[in-house]
Amino acid sequence: PDTGAADAAWQRQMQLTKPPGSLGRLETATVRLAAQQRTSLPALERVWITVFAGDHGVCDEGVSAFPQAVTAQMVRNFAAGGAAVSVLARHLGATLEVVNAGTVTPLPPLAGVRDEPVMPGTANAVREPAMRAAQRDQALALGDGAAARASDAGAQLFIGGDMGIGNTTSAAAVACALLGASPEQLVGRGTGVDDDGLVRKRGAVAAALARHGDDRAPLSVLASLGGLEIAALAGAIRGAASRGLPVLVDGFIVSVAALVAVRHTPDVAAWLHFSHRSAEAGHDAVLRALDAEPLLDLGMRLGEGSGAAVAVPLLQAACRLHGEMATFESAGVSDGG
Amino acid sequence: PDTGAADAAWQRQMQLTKPPGSLGRLETATVRLAAQQRTSLPALERVWITVFAGDHGVCDEGVSAFPQAVTAQMVRNFAAGGAAVSVLARHLGATLEVVNAGTVTPLPPLAGVRDEPVMPGTANAVREPAMRAAQRDQALALGDGAAARASDAGAQLFIGGDMGIGNTTSAAAVACALLGASPEQLVGRGTGVDDDGLVRKRGAVAAALARHGDDRAPLSVLASLGGLEIAALAGAIRGAASRGLPVLVDGFIVSVAALVAVRHTPDVAAWLHFSHRSAEAGHDAVLRALDAEPLLDLGMRLGEGSGAAVAVPLLQAACRLHGEMATFESAGVSDGG
Repeated sequence: PDTGAADAAWQRQMQLTKPPGSLGRLETATVRLAAQQRTSLPALERVWITVFAGDHGVCDEGVSAFPQAVTAQMVRNFAAGGAAVSVLARHLGATLEVVNAGTVTPLPPLAGVRDEPVMPGTANAVREPAMRAAQRDQALALGDGAAARASDAGAQLFIGGDMGIGNTTSAAAVACALLGASPEQLVGRGTGVDDDGLVRKRGAVAAALARHGDDRAPLSVLASLGGLEIAALAGAIRGAASRGLPVLVDGFIVSVAALVAVRHTPDVAAWLHFSHRSAEAGHDAVLRALDAEPLLDLGMRLGEGSGAAVAVPLLQAACRLHGEMATFESAGVSDGG
Repeated sequence: PDTGAADAAWQRQMQLTKPPGSLGRLETATVRLAAQQRTSLPALERVWITVFAGDHGVCDEGVSAFPQAVTAQMVRNFAAGGAAVSVLARHLGATLEVVNAGTVTPLPPLAGVRDEPVMPGTANAVREPAMRAAQRDQALALGDGAAARASDAGAQLFIGGDMGIGNTTSAAAVACALLGASPEQLVGRGTGVDDDGLVRKRGAVAAALARHGDDRAPLSVLASLGGLEIAALAGAIRGAASRGLPVLVDGFIVSVAALVAVRHTPDVAAWLHFSHRSAEAGHDAVLRALDAEPLLDLGMRLGEGSGAAVAVPLLQAACRLHGEMATFESAGVSDGG
């Protein structure tokens, strides 16, 4: 990020026809975007969304309220325009692409879907590593490819979304390993498991952590306990940051991917914005670890990048106010000084 | 509000391709809008914003960081498109009108501004009632007129905004009287007074409350301690509710006007949505008194209706998701049941 552009943006904020600071976090977000986009007048008119889909072997442990087939069914729904993120992307005028990083159910060719499965879902992390190193690296590269396409297309903001039945289990396991936390602290109900399901889910995470052992190296944890879409998201976030493209982080799953990316490459943190605080139990702890203060707290817990897409208009409003408001001088308004 | 339409909207929410409840407050807001708009498919494409301007005699007590002339200067800025709410309204495609309910400085004819001053600012509420009953009623009627225009134009949401140097002092006094609270609890820094200014402001509110006495009747408090734009906002909120038009409440000033309206006419409460939690000190207490949980908490404290305008895209996203997402059946997605 460019501190000169940030300084220039602050100077402009102080001249706009409002009491200094009265737009609150819209002002700080604008200045952060100014630094990231290397201009005193940041803009967010071209938004790019990539949703990564992948299945999770840990579903064998009965950790989800939905069958694994739903992952591929939802990819079709994304493509057909009927999913939440599809509706939101359409109204934002955002580019939406879906990358199949590895569903259990094979997919036919679908418009807007890149079918690039690394494997037909991960292995069951309770029994063995979810991915081998080469598979993890392939998934990371899928994400990097999406960031490259976004950057090449001139996107001003990157949003990654997730789809994967069972992925709150994998994400909680990754977060527990990286943060040294217990399953009781970070495992929540995901799409909505009942009390028995929650017990199974915590048990599965505990067993996977016991199998995994003490290795806290981010990419080791990712391969051992993560998911294909989580790895792709980590690669996308790292790839966006390396290309100077700001990232708006969605909820629990994407935040865990961001945690992996930041623990691996700390410079990534300077490129992140956080959209919302999820209702999923573990999100608070992950946000704290990332020193993140999200824009929204609406009790959302859908994934797909939907929380980030809902937050985009806040950042757009921030940029438009910054760029289009009159100054005290131009409007002939007394500044109280 | 129509409970049948609300029930139908809940039914639809349960069929959309997402875990039940996973859109959090976007779901509850949609159902509330469905009841208010008397349809299972609410929409917020036509938004109406009226900003009411008025000056405050209590400024004689040195309660603001800005001179009173700024109220009229900002009306010109609204009309010229350079104020925050002007920028936001433009991008929302919302109708924006400004009503001069009584500035100290006379205004020339300005496009988009209705010049309908009740008086050239209120009297100093520390020494005498801010308004006489007839002036208060004239200001209430100005607000009702705006609600009538919005309703006649087919607006689907009404936003009231405020402009008035000194109006956090008047609003705090009204809130103290209605809630039986102390100036220490409800008086904040407004546009940004320093420590000495804050002491003067609390002293002015304490003196005005002492002069006012124990009468807690909402319209008596409004006349004695309020402002012309605060009265107009109370009238607009009551008028929108009486016409079945949902209201998105802005920050501290508009919330105090809503409190007056609800204390006077409790049925008004069913028509309100709350946009944001202001950084102004007294807003929390007023929100609690209204049993309100705002959508946003971004540290904004600008007024003008700007916080409400920033929140509009959240409610629009809620309605669009509700109306356009596929159902489990239509998308061929297993619902986990």
